[in-house]
Order: sequence, then structure tokens, then C-alpha cells
Amino acid sequence: MKASVRPRNAFYAQSGGVTAVINASACGVIETARKHKRQIGTVYAGRNGILGALHEELIDTSQESPADIRALRHTPAGAFGSARYKLKKFADDPREYERLIEVFRAHDIGYFFYNGGGDSADTCFKVSMLAEKLGYPLQAIHVPKTVDNDLPITDCCPGFGSVAKYVAVSIREAGFDVASMAKTSTKVFVLEVMGRHAGWIAAAGGLAAGKAGEAPHIILFPEIRFDEDAFLARTKECVDRYGYCAVVVSEGVKNAEGKFLADAGTRDAFGHAQLGGVGPVVAQLVKDKLGYKYHWAVADYLQRAARHIASKVDVEQAYAVGKAAVEFAVKGHNSVMPAIVRTSNRPYRWKIGMAPLDQVANVEKMLPRDYITPDGFHITAKGRQYLAPLIQGEDYPPYEKGLPRYVVLRNKPVRKKLKTAFVL
Amino acid sequence: MKASVRPRNAFYAQSGGVTAVINASACGVIETARKHKRQIGTVYAGRNGILGALHEELIDTSQESPADIRALRHTPAGAFGSARYKLKKFADDPREYERLIEVFRAHDIGYFFYNGGGDSADTCFKVSMLAEKLGYPLQAIHVPKTVDNDLPITDCCPGFGSVAKYVAVSIREAGFDVASMAKTSTKVFVLEVMGRHAGWIAAAGGLAAGKAGEAPHIILFPEIRFDEDAFLARTKECVDRYGYCAVVVSEGVKNAEGKFLADAGTRDAFGHAQLGGVGPVVAQLVKDKLGYKYHWAVADYLQRAARHIASKVDVEQAYAVGKAAVEFAVKGHNSVMPAIVRTSNRPYRWKIGMAPLDQVANVEKMLPRDYITPDGFHITAKGRQYLAPLIQGEDYPPYEKGLPRYVVLRNKPVRKKLKTAFVL
Repeated sequence: MKASVRPRNAFYAQSGGVTAVINASACGVIETARKHKRQIGTVYAGRNGILGALHEELIDTSQESPADIRALRHTPAGAFGSARYKLKKFADDPREYERLIEVFRAHDIGYFFYNGGGDSADTCFKVSMLAEKLGYPLQAIHVPKTVDNDLPITDCCPGFGSVAKYVAVSIREAGFDVASMAKTSTKVFVLEVMGRHAGWIAAAGGLAAGKAGEAPHIILFPEIRFDEDAFLARTKECVDRYGYCAVVVSEGVKNAEGKFLADAGTRDAFGHAQLGGVGPVVAQLVKDKLGYKYHWAVADYLQRAARHIASKVDVEQAYAVGKAAVEFAVKGHNSVMPAIVRTSNRPYRWKIGMAPLDQVANVEKMLPRDYITPDGFHITAKGRQYLAPLIQGEDYPPYEKGLPRYVVLRNKPVRKKLKTAFVL
Repeated sequence: MKASVRPRNAFYAQSGGVTAVINASACGVIETARKHKRQIGTVYAGRNGILGALHEELIDTSQESPADIRALRHTPAGAFGSARYKLKKFADDPREYERLIEVFRAHDIGYFFYNGGGDSADTCFKVSMLAEKLGYPLQAIHVPKTVDNDLPITDCCPGFGSVAKYVAVSIREAGFDVASMAKTSTKVFVLEVMGRHAGWIAAAGGLAAGKAGEAPHIILFPEIRFDEDAFLARTKECVDRYGYCAVVVSEGVKNAEGKFLADAGTRDAFGHAQLGGVGPVVAQLVKDKLGYKYHWAVADYLQRAARHIASKVDVEQAYAVGKAAVEFAVKGHNSVMPAIVRTSNRPYRWKIGMAPLDQVANVEKMLPRDYITPDGFHITAKGRQYLAPLIQGEDYPPYEKGLPRYVVLRNKPVRKKLKTAFVL
């Protein structure tokens, strides 16, 4: 393949749940594109992700100063807006894909950088195929991002390392707190974390327990069916032995019948499924069956937005995949994703490889069973070896008046060229 | 008053809910005592707070290395264990107070440093009075600590500034997240914070909103009765204007009937009062009445244990009150508390003053009404002026393998001298 001979524009969009470092990938894309002016004209960003393309709501990133683009590296969340929007199946309704090409054609977009998880890898792949079918010259590159850490081929997913660090730091700190209080007050603390399908995030909490007796004492994974008796026995054992028990529970934990524990228990006064997550359910169970005073926390968005405690490795990898995406593009690659390749555990070393999108789309990488201890309540040495490098290093944002100084871009719209509006 | 002529031992205890910086006060007490060997022998710490004195379970802090004592400055929670234990009223049962003096006498304790909130200030005051009545020479100094920020005389309370910073940083970060997602997904985010009686912590969240439109858009204070219609109208207004709405809600918010909102709504399937806090209640209300997709978080212990994002001002003040307590003692003072005195707002300057304990005990400092906007949903410029300096500066702990390196002390017990056990 050969590089383009005249500069064409690029389209960049953020997709799905945002992370502490997806903007670092945006930074990598935009800064690198600015260094390749012979091949890449303007980087347009989609306002609210792929919707920005469908509605022809493009943002002209060339209007942003180098300092503001640089500040994306330390700013959490999605600076251009993201979207939870899955394109319809191509076979059912190709209109959306055709519209994308129409908008790309109108703005001479030759590069499509799609920053997201599994669904967006699939979309990116299909857009690439359709462009080829229609004879429209387009290089579609997927930029990996997901706190769920479930993309295949890449060793890990940008966004995950920072959530992992947040969860490990938080349960360590809360563990110290509960240990102080346990004699007369709280004996059990439950921290609910994200991970509806896979226990990667919950597993990361296990890193805080460097040795026996350290928090967390118990991790509840979505991969392991919840065994109430075993859980209660282990909780009591921890309280007897250590004076307290700290638990990390994944939102996706299911009971023996395969139902989410968060949904199984309770109804509010109006009969709605209860408002809380699984954290309070587990905590209340401990109270009802063992009588221990409890506290619980639900980190929710705080965990994935926590740029203040981002993993340095994660920030660097997020930037690197954005940078590599552009470098792949200017080298003429299409329908690929930059992947993180681990070359060494100690010291941790990694490089960027290239994954073909047809091998990425629609494959979920689950937490291996041998990362979980046989009893199902903690991580193994093997799991620890995989996870530990991903939370290494701190990369603090700048502060002003005691608060992190995060950038809000100008996000200037690009004038529309199409006469047609698109109805979703 | 004159300083003691021969060295006598000191007793230090942590009381009530712990904070990110109470160990910094312990560090200040112990390091300073070690500099006054002519007056102070050994600092004994109470294992699990005042229970350690009642049960004669003393910890010999002289067994800890200078490096470990120094590490207390960056370690959250209570290194010796705290206790939620309020002594019985002296008039009802003086036995507990008498026991304290008995234990103090057995270990030649001439200094009592009690590190806590309002209740412990009261205890400290009463112990001081009883010692005087019994002719036992004792100097009792209260070391202020409470995330609730409700002690009188002192301008602020060590522990509060770091929670304040955590909450302000967290709602800023979550606000960026929701803003990214709002087009197709979450429009309302609710963060529940501590503060059963006073809205100091919730108010601190307001610091993140430097200008109109920034998160949080709404703060719900325990001081303001919850007005459902006004709240929903404001929420809708924010979503219409900014695309999303970020809410900080104090756990202590009450409805028009004066009941905690957290208790008012819901029951689980067994008829128990619902498991969640007020965060999910408020979020569900938004969903039911306005139809917006929501997310909520309950920070719970994470907020007060979050030493990783502690306020530098708070750490310095926590250390300073511990140091001053010892300095007051060696100067012969009794029944006093080091208080933080604000001498300037811009630049923020403070010094340590001295408050007599009879003026501290049993007085709660509430959030002034003029720190809350007339509509009850945010903080005023005056509130901001008070709060802003308290979150200034970062004071990061050291990290090892991606996690903060917090110290666990050896906590060597002191051999008991009394033949009697004490039954609570």
C-alpha cells in the first residue's frame, strides 16, 4: 500500500462509555495528524461520536490551540462528546453506513479514526468494507478504548489501567479506614465496581492485597456464581482473623439461577426493582446473616472519570494508540487497530502492534479462570502478574485553586455541505 | 502555669470516624513529643481509642522508627485504631472516668491528647476536671479532627479539607463524564456525600462549579428541606440548558416532614428500610418524574479515606494541631484545644490559636445560611471564599508498584500494670 498523494481530511469520533484517558488518545491522533500535513488536512471530530457523522455535525479541531490539544492528554471523559449508538445491522438497513460515506465524501474525509470498544471496532470494520465496495477511498482505523478490557489481541485496553488503579487505591484506603473502625463500629465494607460481563475491574482491586490480611479480603466476580454460604463463611473468617473484611464486588455478579444479584433482591415501595446496585445487597446480606455493621460504596462514574489518579502506563498507552493509528493511516493501512503488545513483565515493557479489524470485531476477551483463585474469591499470582504493570506510575494533571485544570475545547462547528438531514 | 519538672508519659487516642489526615496529627503529636524529652517520656497510644485506656491496652509508640512515625503523615485512617465510644454521663456513672485516671496513674501519664470531634472534646474536658478534683496532675489537650467541620472556634477542622477536595474533584470529573454521555445516554448524575447533620461536605462540592454551567449544577443540603417540585424544575432546566445535570446530595437531606429522604422512600422485599442511601432515591425520582437516564455514586468511606488526593492545607493543619497540642502541654496548658485561626483569605494565611475546652465541648458549628444561595441549590460567593482555601495544594503520598505506600505500625503493647480488668 502507498500513502495518499494529496492531503485528505480525517474524521475522529469517540464511542461508548468514556474513560479517564480517551482524550489522551484524541490528543495522540490530533497531535500526530498535525505532524503529517502532507497527507492529512484537517482532523474533524464527531460531535457526540458517530452521531456527529450521521448528522454532519463535525467539529473543526484545527481551531484548537496546541496547548488545548495537549491538555486533552490530562483531561478525562470525551472532549467532543461520545455516543452510545450502535449502527443498525448492515443487512437490515444499510442507510446509516451509506450516510457515513456520503458525509465523508462531502468533507473529503480519507481517514476514519474510531475510538471505542468492541461495537465500534465492528462498525469501523463495516464502514471500511462498504467504502471499498462503493469505491470510496477510505482508511478506517480503530483506536482501542474500554474500561472493560475485553478487546481481543491487544494485551490490554486503554482506559482499563486507570480504573484498575482507582479501584485498587480506593479499596486500600477504605480498608485502612475500616480496620481503624472495626473494634466498635463497621466490620464489613463493600465496594461495588463496574464490569457487567467480565471481572477485570474487580480483579484489579485484588492488587491492593499485597499480602494475606490486606484489603480486599474477598472479590466477587461475574465469572463465579455467587455462593451465599461460602461468601458468608469467608466473611466471618476474615472478621474473626483480621477484625474486619473488605469486599470488592462486580456489578455483574449473578446468583445460582444466573440472575444479577443487583436485581434479584429487592423492590421499592412502588414495586420497582430496587434502586441500588449489588453493593448494598451484599452488605445487607452480611448484616442480616452475620449481624456485622457495614458500610458500602458505589464508585460508578467516579472510577472511570478519575483522571486525578490515572495510571501513567495507561495514559502513555492511550496516547500511543492514537499516535499509532495516524501513523498506520499515513503508511496506507486500512481496517486495522493499534494493539498493545507486552514484550516483558519484569521490567514491564510494551510496544504497539497491528491487529486486523476482522479479528477484533465481535470477540470478547474474558477474564481467564486461572487469574481467579480456585475458591473464586481472589486473584492468583498469574492474574496479579498480568494486572500489576497496568497501574504503574502516576500522571497527575495540573491543578489550579486546588482542583484539576481540565480543558473544555471550543468545539467550533464545520459548516454543513449536505442539504439533507438524516433521521435516525 | 509551669512546665512539668520531670518527664511524665503521654497518652494519645484517636476517636470517632477516622479521616485522611488524623494520622498526620498523630505524627505531629509523636514527633513533637520526641523533641521534648525533658518533659515527656513515652507517648502511649490507646489501642482502639479511648477503649485502650479503659482496658489498659496501651501501645508503646517509642518502638516505632522515626521513618514509620513520619509515614503517618501520609497514611489515612487511624493507625492505632479508633473507637465510636461515648463515655457515659459523668453524673450517671463516674466509673469510666475514674478508670481512666487509674490507668493514667499506673503508667504515670501526665498528658492526655485526645484526637477527635465534639464528643471527644467533651470527654477530654471532663477528664481534665475529674483529674483536678482527684488531685491527679494531668494536662488534657484536645486535638481537633472531624470531616464534619462542626467544631466551634477553630476556623475549620482537620479532615474536612481533604474530604472537601475529594468531593470537588470527583464531581468535576464525573461532570465531564456525564457531559460526554448526555446526548444519547446518562443525563443526570447524582453523587451522595457524607454530612448527616450539616452540609459542609456537600457545600465543598460546589467549588468545582467555577462558572455557570459547570458541575455540580445542584447541591442538596441537609439545612434546606427537600422541595421535590423545585428540585425537578431545576434539574430539567439544567438538562435543557447544559444538556446534563450533576447533583451533589448530602446523606442528611430531609423531606418536608423532616424525615431523612434516604429512609422515606423504599422498603426491600422483606420490608426492611431500603438498602441504598439518598443518592439512588434522588436519582430514581428524576427517572420517574422526568424520564432521564441516570447514574449515581455513593462515595461513603472512599471520601474520607482518600489520602491520595488529600488537601495540602489540610495535611499541614492536621500536623500543626498535633504539634501545637504538645507544645501547649509542655508550656503547662490544660483543658485547651489548638484551633486554626484564619488571618487572611487572599493569600490564604492561618495560624494556631488556643481554645478553652469548656467553649468547645457540646457546641456544633452549622453551615451558615448565607453560604447557601437563596434558592437553596448552591453555594454563595461568601461560602466559596470560606471553602476554597481549604482544598488548596496537593500532598501526594509515595507510591510503590502503582499503589500508595501507607504505613502499618508495629503497635507493640505495653505490659499491663493493673490487676483489674474493666467491664464496659
